[in-house]
Amino acid sequence: MEKQCVLSILVHNQPGVLSRIAGLFSGRGYNIDSISVAETMDKDISRITLITTGEKNIIEQITKQLNKLINVVRVCDFTNENYIYRELALIKVNAKAEARAEILRIADIFRCHIVDVGTDHYILEITASKNKLQAIIDLLKPFGIKDFVKTGSIALQRGK
Amino acid sequence: MEKQCVLSILVHNQPGVLSRIAGLFSGRGYNIDSISVAETMDKDISRITLITTGEKNIIEQITKQLNKLINVVRVCDFTNENYIYRELALIKVNAKAEARAEILRIADIFRCHIVDVGTDHYILEITASKNKLQAIIDLLKPFGIKDFVKTGSIALQRGK
Repeated sequence: MEKQCVLSILVHNQPGVLSRIAGLFSGRGYNIDSISVAETMDKDISRITLITTGEKNIIEQITKQLNKLINVVRVCDFTNENYIYRELALIKVNAKAEARAEILRIADIFRCHIVDVGTDHYILEITASKNKLQAIIDLLKPFGIKDFVKTGSIALQRGK
Repeated sequence: MEKQCVLSILVHNQPGVLSRIAGLFSGRGYNIDSISVAETMDKDISRITLITTGEKNIIEQITKQLNKLINVVRVCDFTNENYIYRELALIKVNAKAEARAEILRIADIFRCHIVDVGTDHYILEITASKNKLQAIIDLLKPFGIKDFVKTGSIALQRGK
């Protein structure tokens, strides 16, 4: 049965690591739904948060192979854990004079910040789960979304 | 002269794209400082925001080769543009009874949200530029940071 998996991978910060990790997935025809790579507090170690969809046993195989890769320090599979999950998006939306009040109301409800204002646009910054982000996109679409970018998701284990 | 570059790459959402793109950088011994890959509003197209450091002419060469890759739709170099730049972090910090008030004050000043509370920890969510993020990490370090994850940076062009 296919399901979404959340992997958190600590790696040594060396050229080539990302290419090899991505290659393990593409070699099986697996798509990576989202990925975020950034330094940890130790500049020599990066943390990769990777979301993919696939069959449980194939994901287990990939996880084992990830663990064998040189430069991989540790792989955690958060899929069945209790974790916090967030993504960040920047949305540039058309904001003509007559639409501004309504867009600000929507931004307020979703606790967005307005991070840029032009004569005919706003840029909204929002941190949310995937569903909440989709909800605000659906609300802003009628105004015309001019540009959009979001991060790959990140995850952190709750409690313990 | 080496400098930091911000590339925004639109790609068709196919297995193998990320591996090829990462390979272009590692093939030259270039490290990717941070990367974020996620769907755009069109589920068939993903947007990659990639930060790297290198010499201008080498980055130009890589950009040209990126443009030639199958599945790459468009490459934008934001380096010399006026752009908004953000990253999102989750920070799990030790929060013993006597430290809680001070951590909450810091969180308030930096406009963090507390997204998880345990008997001896908080998880803070913060959206910020790189410098601001470093500032809060420096303030929280004395309490003991138990876990930390951040997204790759994302960028969106201002104005126009």
